[in-house]
Amino acid sequence: MEASLSTLVLPWPFSFQPRDFSLPNSSWGSDMRRLYEHYNSQCEVETDDGEKKWGVWRRLPSYNRSLKYATGGVYLSKIIQSKARLFTRNIREQGAGFEYVVFVNKQEQKCVCVFQAGHLLEGPPGHVHGGAIATMIDTVTGTHATYLSGPVMTANLNINYRSPISLGSTVLLTCSLDKKEGRKTFVSCQVTNTDSSKLHTEATGLFLSITMGHLLGG
Amino acid sequence: MEASLSTLVLPWPFSFQPRDFSLPNSSWGSDMRRLYEHYNSQCEVETDDGEKKWGVWRRLPSYNRSLKYATGGVYLSKIIQSKARLFTRNIREQGAGFEYVVFVNKQEQKCVCVFQAGHLLEGPPGHVHGGAIATMIDTVTGTHATYLSGPVMTANLNINYRSPISLGSTVLLTCSLDKKEGRKTFVSCQVTNTDSSKLHTEATGLFLSITMGHLLGG
Repeated sequence: MEASLSTLVLPWPFSFQPRDFSLPNSSWGSDMRRLYEHYNSQCEVETDDGEKKWGVWRRLPSYNRSLKYATGGVYLSKIIQSKARLFTRNIREQGAGFEYVVFVNKQEQKCVCVFQAGHLLEGPPGHVHGGAIATMIDTVTGTHATYLSGPVMTANLNINYRSPISLGSTVLLTCSLDKKEGRKTFVSCQVTNTDSSKLHTEATGLFLSITMGHLLGG
Repeated sequence: MEASLSTLVLPWPFSFQPRDFSLPNSSWGSDMRRLYEHYNSQCEVETDDGEKKWGVWRRLPSYNRSLKYATGGVYLSKIIQSKARLFTRNIREQGAGFEYVVFVNKQEQKCVCVFQAGHLLEGPPGHVHGGAIATMIDTVTGTHATYLSGPVMTANLNINYRSPISLGSTVLLTCSLDKKEGRKTFVSCQVTNTDSSKLHTEATGLFLSITMGHLLGG
């Protein structure tokens, strides 16, 4: 089982604010910016009195560090601990790796991720690696399961690759809750082009609720 | 569908030899080196006459570039084309990302991959990201399917995560052929600790045989 990240990834506890990777940067293309604006504009709405309140969507921030724990009785080396970075945020150059932002909609128990695939994610010539797509699916379904059920670990991912994704393009990942049964949360996910007219990949994820003890070797 | 890489990844056509990433480097720990030696020593055997001949195992070389094709009618930008790198070989710093080497055994229709997970592959605190594990599974099952059936694309990956993998550790991926049916090749894969006593992850992969026309948009 792999623990999902959203609730576990906490700001690195230094005195300055950590970088939020889910905010726009100069590498974002027009599709990425447009979709970001579409969902971001629905995160805050203005009432008739001109006051602002939360909308139906929430943008989730995204950092490249997590708090470190000793695990399974094995203490990681101090060097690995200090250098560790979140897999999806490990490349310094903007636009080269995973550019993405996740929005959740609690009311509809739905979440979307806008993902722009950089040139370092190549698999087949000119296309995104199947493992990079699986990585985004794990990230977004896991984030959604965590949002709905609290801390979870991935128990199963079942991924059907329908049509390759061109390197450099922007796609949409849409996740919804299938069901909850005791410790289990079932989420499904579709990866489509930006207007949802073409299905690239579809997947289901099964997540198990955990306590921090699971990662501490309990 | 995602095309697998082994037959498509060709040396970059410059005058010098491209770097083979599957050879030992100074970042490899003792487990990685020991397992490399174990399989590598069976790649060439000495006959009674003192002559050398191929053994049962073959080490597959691994590069970070592939030839570029225009795909699906969409020509990639020249910048993306020139900067594109294989996802699993996109990090310059040795030992920081995916360190791995694949050996195939044609006789037994089996393949193994020795994989050392670097500090930039973090998911849950202190552990390897589920997407990084999926990436190695896609890479190794796809390589095996290609070795057995020629060029293929990944149609399905079904992954069960049993037990988290500590960041920095070395694991073994073992793949075997389940069956071939027309264009379909079914491969299964286990991810275990180095002495195979602990199962971390198990998966099945379904691959479809393709011609280059599939990637060229045919």
